[in-house]
Amino acid sequence: MSEALTGLELRSTVTSDAMLRLDLAEVTLDQPGPDEVIVRVEASPINPSDLGLLLGPADLSTMQAGGTPDRPILTATIPPQRMAMLGARLDQSMPVGNEGAGTVVQAGEKAAHLIGRKVGMIGGAMYTQYRKLRVSDCIPLPEGATAADGASMFVNPLTALAFTETMKAEGHKAIVHTAAASNLGQMLNKICLADGIPLVNIVRSAEQADILRAIGARYIVDSTAPDFMAALTDAIAETGATLGFDAVGGGKLASQILTAMEMAANRNATTYSRYGSSVFKQVYIYGMLDFGPTLLDRSFGLSWSVSGWLLTPFLMKAGPEVNARMRQRVVDELTTTFASHYSATISLADALNPEIVAAYQRKTTGEKYLIDPSL
Amino acid sequence: MSEALTGLELRSTVTSDAMLRLDLAEVTLDQPGPDEVIVRVEASPINPSDLGLLLGPADLSTMQAGGTPDRPILTATIPPQRMAMLGARLDQSMPVGNEGAGTVVQAGEKAAHLIGRKVGMIGGAMYTQYRKLRVSDCIPLPEGATAADGASMFVNPLTALAFTETMKAEGHKAIVHTAAASNLGQMLNKICLADGIPLVNIVRSAEQADILRAIGARYIVDSTAPDFMAALTDAIAETGATLGFDAVGGGKLASQILTAMEMAANRNATTYSRYGSSVFKQVYIYGMLDFGPTLLDRSFGLSWSVSGWLLTPFLMKAGPEVNARMRQRVVDELTTTFASHYSATISLADALNPEIVAAYQRKTTGEKYLIDPSL
Repeated sequence: MSEALTGLELRSTVTSDAMLRLDLAEVTLDQPGPDEVIVRVEASPINPSDLGLLLGPADLSTMQAGGTPDRPILTATIPPQRMAMLGARLDQSMPVGNEGAGTVVQAGEKAAHLIGRKVGMIGGAMYTQYRKLRVSDCIPLPEGATAADGASMFVNPLTALAFTETMKAEGHKAIVHTAAASNLGQMLNKICLADGIPLVNIVRSAEQADILRAIGARYIVDSTAPDFMAALTDAIAETGATLGFDAVGGGKLASQILTAMEMAANRNATTYSRYGSSVFKQVYIYGMLDFGPTLLDRSFGLSWSVSGWLLTPFLMKAGPEVNARMRQRVVDELTTTFASHYSATISLADALNPEIVAAYQRKTTGEKYLIDPSL
Repeated sequence: MSEALTGLELRSTVTSDAMLRLDLAEVTLDQPGPDEVIVRVEASPINPSDLGLLLGPADLSTMQAGGTPDRPILTATIPPQRMAMLGARLDQSMPVGNEGAGTVVQAGEKAAHLIGRKVGMIGGAMYTQYRKLRVSDCIPLPEGATAADGASMFVNPLTALAFTETMKAEGHKAIVHTAAASNLGQMLNKICLADGIPLVNIVRSAEQADILRAIGARYIVDSTAPDFMAALTDAIAETGATLGFDAVGGGKLASQILTAMEMAANRNATTYSRYGSSVFKQVYIYGMLDFGPTLLDRSFGLSWSVSGWLLTPFLMKAGPEVNARMRQRVVDELTTTFASHYSATISLADALNPEIVAAYQRKTTGEKYLIDPSL
């Protein structure tokens, strides 16, 4: 029997009196089962997809620091009108962190060969010092890779690969992507360049355009430029893109993409139909950089769809062979195609510091925080 | 050889100098081909789906009457910013009117048995005194039925039937419908009652609720009532509806339907997921009673889709057997399930009268105009 391991774990609680509370709980782990390992977590990214569970819909202008330096507590108020959807998590101390990487320190009998190996992990509750999980939720990192290299090997890499799988499965031949200079967007460019898939990148600044140009992106459109719609329509007409993936969510962007697709489709139209073109246009919203409402002006005919998109249901539908193929590609190209860059590495306690929270929740493109719970 | 027939036909033109022009053109018809008939049109409805082609995006406060009593002309200006999508119809004199009914007055050799019969027709250009078309685009009316009985036997009946076919094909078990007291909505209630399909009706007034209650509707929710969201959620929880058909288009209604579906799904949830329930929720927008933007607040997880819906692509995808079955049901239940009611019958010239245009374009629920070109 190995010794029982005890460590700190970040927890997020929404209380029934409309408060958000973050704290560090002391957690003692049972022995791993036969096909389980315990990993000392050394790197876990703060993805946009983690922020919803971590911070809820709290009003961050009300953040208050409390507790002690070693065991800080962060509180903030939640506007009452935002409480309606939170019923299922009320007064529960919830662990956070979708993915991470670290070193295997204990293992069940079927996983003994992994002790001392660095692994990437998926499955939530990664903002913790020790994480017990099934071997099937780990991927051993290639020789020489660091925990930071493997910390983001699931969410962004599999999402980017899943975009191209979705494209093929649904019969499209090119993709439009927004917030395109993000870590995910850069991966998607590398995949599409390697696989010969035309990709139209929508960015929000000249600096972001430069990032993508440097990695070889061909179609880059700046949504803040005065000729945005014309440039987007040209790029869509040239690539034939009828599928968009939108990380922004709120505002007019999804609508603008559909309108540009419709205008591109109508360029070659010879007859008028008041119902618009018969070309089917799909935009998937997979992110919430803008929490505001999505505004669809429906100036794009009646052959369109705007839908939510989430990785897990895609993976479940895609089946084990596609999953295995995607995972293998991530391992093979971990430090090239799927390299992630972090602007700062912080401790668990830092993650509860109001100033640092304000910084990492900004979701600035190109900025990404890494938590190292072993610090 | 029969005599060549000449009649008046309503035409709509959008000119490149941003004017809408409606007039009556004199049209002379060639002899019908072997499988064609010529029908004297005696009834053709003004459906919401006709108004886009008929009136375009004209500013109706600028309507001007011209011409003579027998050959009136109506003009109106089009705001320049609405001209972008009209390129394919510019300066073309376009016939209007999706469906109608009348008496066969000439027929090709394969259709001679139809002379003198009343038929319903689909195919556009029905706001005309004589319409030549293929026999396959006609359905002979049952004995004793009038042209008014058969005037609306395609668009609304097939759309209502197609909603239930879509429900079955996509694996849903109940339907939410908006503008539910419309002619179409009443048909849908009768179909769903007969077929045992739970239907949640969203109306905008107590009067509309009364109309539906009188025909036996069980779930009726008034979107102007203060408890709208609670009542809608209750009805959706009880029926299990995860599919909506929305005739309104603009505003928050589609979003409210998805939110109510999500809240109903979460009533039985035992665990919190920040991505929302895994229950897939679909709203199809098939109408444009409100031309404003669709506002999606995305407070309904990530398992959702909002899409355009149009009858013709559905029928093409459904195949000939489903089409034949649907048409036969319309004929069998023409004066019961699929009875339409008209608030006024007008002539072709009336349809160009500014006061009458102002009335029929209002799309008031329960009000519907019928054009009789033989008047």
